[in-house]
Amino acid sequence: MSLSTRHLLGLQGLPKEDITLILDTAETFKEVLRRPIPKVPTLRGKTVVNLFFEPSTRTRISFELAEKRLSADTVNFSASISSVQKGETLRDTARNIEAMKIDMVVIRHAFSGAPHFLTRHVKANVINAGDGRHEHPTQALLDMMTLREKLGSLEGLKVVIVGDILNSRVARSNLYGLQTMGAKVGFCGPRTLIPVQAERWGVEIFYNLEDAIAWADVLNILRIQRERQVAGLFPSIREYRSQWGVTRAKLDRVGKKDIIIMHPGPINRGVELESEVADSGYSVILDQVTNGVAVRMAVLYLLSGVETSFEG
Amino acid sequence: MSLSTRHLLGLQGLPKEDITLILDTAETFKEVLRRPIPKVPTLRGKTVVNLFFEPSTRTRISFELAEKRLSADTVNFSASISSVQKGETLRDTARNIEAMKIDMVVIRHAFSGAPHFLTRHVKANVINAGDGRHEHPTQALLDMMTLREKLGSLEGLKVVIVGDILNSRVARSNLYGLQTMGAKVGFCGPRTLIPVQAERWGVEIFYNLEDAIAWADVLNILRIQRERQVAGLFPSIREYRSQWGVTRAKLDRVGKKDIIIMHPGPINRGVELESEVADSGYSVILDQVTNGVAVRMAVLYLLSGVETSFEG
Amino acid sequence: MSLSTRHLLGLQGLPKEDITLILDTAETFKEVLRRPIPKVPTLRGKTVVNLFFEPSTRTRISFELAEKRLSADTVNFSASISSVQKGETLRDTARNIEAMKIDMVVIRHAFSGAPHFLTRHVKANVINAGDGRHEHPTQALLDMMTLREKLGSLEGLKVVIVGDILNSRVARSNLYGLQTMGAKVGFCGPRTLIPVQAERWGVEIFYNLEDAIAWADVLNILRIQRERQVAGLFPSIREYRSQWGVTRAKLDRVGKKDIIIMHPGPINRGVELESEVADSGYSVILDQVTNGVAVRMAVLYLLSGVETSFEG
Repeated sequence: MSLSTRHLLGLQGLPKEDITLILDTAETFKEVLRRPIPKVPTLRGKTVVNLFFEPSTRTRISFELAEKRLSADTVNFSASISSVQKGETLRDTARNIEAMKIDMVVIRHAFSGAPHFLTRHVKANVINAGDGRHEHPTQALLDMMTLREKLGSLEGLKVVIVGDILNSRVARSNLYGLQTMGAKVGFCGPRTLIPVQAERWGVEIFYNLEDAIAWADVLNILRIQRERQVAGLFPSIREYRSQWGVTRAKLDRVGKKDIIIMHPGPINRGVELESEVADSGYSVILDQVTNGVAVRMAVLYLLSGVETSFEG
Repeated sequence: MSLSTRHLLGLQGLPKEDITLILDTAETFKEVLRRPIPKVPTLRGKTVVNLFFEPSTRTRISFELAEKRLSADTVNFSASISSVQKGETLRDTARNIEAMKIDMVVIRHAFSGAPHFLTRHVKANVINAGDGRHEHPTQALLDMMTLREKLGSLEGLKVVIVGDILNSRVARSNLYGLQTMGAKVGFCGPRTLIPVQAERWGVEIFYNLEDAIAWADVLNILRIQRERQVAGLFPSIREYRSQWGVTRAKLDRVGKKDIIIMHPGPINRGVELESEVADSGYSVILDQVTNGVAVRMAVLYLLSGVETSFEG
Repeated sequence: MSLSTRHLLGLQGLPKEDITLILDTAETFKEVLRRPIPKVPTLRGKTVVNLFFEPSTRTRISFELAEKRLSADTVNFSASISSVQKGETLRDTARNIEAMKIDMVVIRHAFSGAPHFLTRHVKANVINAGDGRHEHPTQALLDMMTLREKLGSLEGLKVVIVGDILNSRVARSNLYGLQTMGAKVGFCGPRTLIPVQAERWGVEIFYNLEDAIAWADVLNILRIQRERQVAGLFPSIREYRSQWGVTRAKLDRVGKKDIIIMHPGPINRGVELESEVADSGYSVILDQVTNGVAVRMAVLYLLSGVETSFEG
């Protein structure tokens, strides 16, 4: 079995078979991670470059762990200590990657489309680790893996994404992936932060959080970017918390017992999500983190085209 | 033989047997480091994360070398390129480490108690690489290894720590470790920089450097933090040097021929320690650096619980 | 066969036999890089530290790839996250490297002579990755490898270096290496940026770019440092481009069909070099990048003194 694509740029248009193959493979790798030596020689001698043009801890470390557990050689590049300072263009970066015979590139970039641009200039497999407001496909894949693991199937599942949908690549990748897999997607947030065309995408729109809770099987709660609040897109942290913050009191008021709580992290505790809920039995937030490494191993392995059995 | 603890948070309360086991194991690793290929497969497949929330060269590189010579996979995290910028709390960092199935964490943090806090949230073994003004146990262990190597035993040895004792985690860890091993500890420095309760700890206090030299077998000279001087805790670099700076002239005046000079580095040459002394036959400063790698290998190995013989 | 030196500090005075041995070995490694697993166990267990006191992407990554493909353990140090902040001197850095039993050091430093200084304090092999305005020997070696590969031999070849010669370590290393190998070197640029003693070195001087093109087999075009332009060493980017920028129009005007275009990167496209030329069949810029990894593998291997055959 192999993917229909050599790159993972986004989940828009990615066939159901590809998503299923990635999730199935990730489950195999999750088994590998439970071994005493959670490492396989799959990508030995392959070189992966992690190009992070935006700051990141969790995603960069998750990819780096995935690469090392596959025995790849990894090289890190973060923009602050780079010749981006010297004005190197993305195109020249791409050509250099190509010339250095690097096998795979993981890229995070503030510019939507940067990973797609790379693919036109390199033979390396490209994995989008977040590009502008566009997509963050491995995040959505790990979210889907976590839901499938808890609930058996994504078919017919009702998932509401809560928060700043308009600016969120996590929302966009989840929307595409979940709809492909047969789930129903809702958006919930301030009017200013919901894309106007959302209804045409077949999305349920909620301007009231309790209505969303009543409808949903799952809440995937986005991080509030305080920088944007400064820009006046919503009135204040206090008001955001009171209207859109997910709290125990709101869940109880709706009387929803078995709703699943997700968050891509890092959490603004007490803003978009109350600690009591984040750390409750509702929450699968730490499963998401664990599954992140397994999903990234699966993506790296499947894109690499290497064939192997997973004997450590 | 194994340690009584799963973490190395400090030397306060660490039994003599544990310290002895670490120092004996470090000597074995020092042999390994003399081999043509100074590497053992002991921690193959184990993942160690180096979390440095404060800048460091020497300690970070020393740990990273120790990890690589044990064949561990290492991931580095330094605060300036991290989601600490996004306000992630230490607690969420801990939970992520746990969820990513990381085996061991080396942490340096400005907050005293940060490593201890981590242990309450992770199954990983935690090693304190310096927390606030609290402890820096691997530094004290390498100091003790160096002294034991030169002098055979720590029992009855007289060690004076010179400088800003009040704010020094190196001083605190040395005090605990040395007293446990039967050495006598003295403090020497400006009145404002010696803890008021020091006498109750059984420490000899010296406000005059030459008196300290006369008493001591060993001087362990702390680095002056120029930042604190700005804060008015001592009058000027010039005055500090003249009263507390260790010089050849002062050693000669006391007529001490065989005193041992230690410094945790990096040295402010010509301030707390004169180059002529730092680079003299008195000095074991470079032995400290060499032993640092061996001690850190020993700590990583012993905490990991892996059983092995050191066949390269 | 082995080199006459334990360090690579510069090409000034490096014998022809040494340069030839490095280039021949680099060709062997280029074969290794074409294998499905482009990795050899040559430096297994050896530790290489990359000390970058100046920002760099391309050179740092190229060295790191070379090291990893030789199976060395690598530790990175860049000045911004280091105890250089705490005022550590280069001498103490050197002593620490020595004490930590590091096998090889790659150093980039703003101070001309920093790598040479290191060699007086460490047993490790030292490789200069660029020191001030002095030398950048691996750059010149990869330039020569690329020319030899294209043209068979360097003997009698006419190479013009274009741009800010005065401040360029790339120019200096190319001059020494090319002359040793029997090539003829020209300099072309504004009067203020050509060293006054250049004629005494046997260099052809051109103050007109088209004259240089007419004479040359090869143009090696230096990057314009915009910082220096600010300092008033040349009047404006616009004027620089019009007089010294290499364009298709200028090449056509001279009627030179088969001139080779080199650039050490990163290119200021449209300033010192037009995109149409940089990306044309004239250009060997990407061969330079590919050869950079092979040349650095060769240098690391030859300096290490390890004897091996390259069975992956």
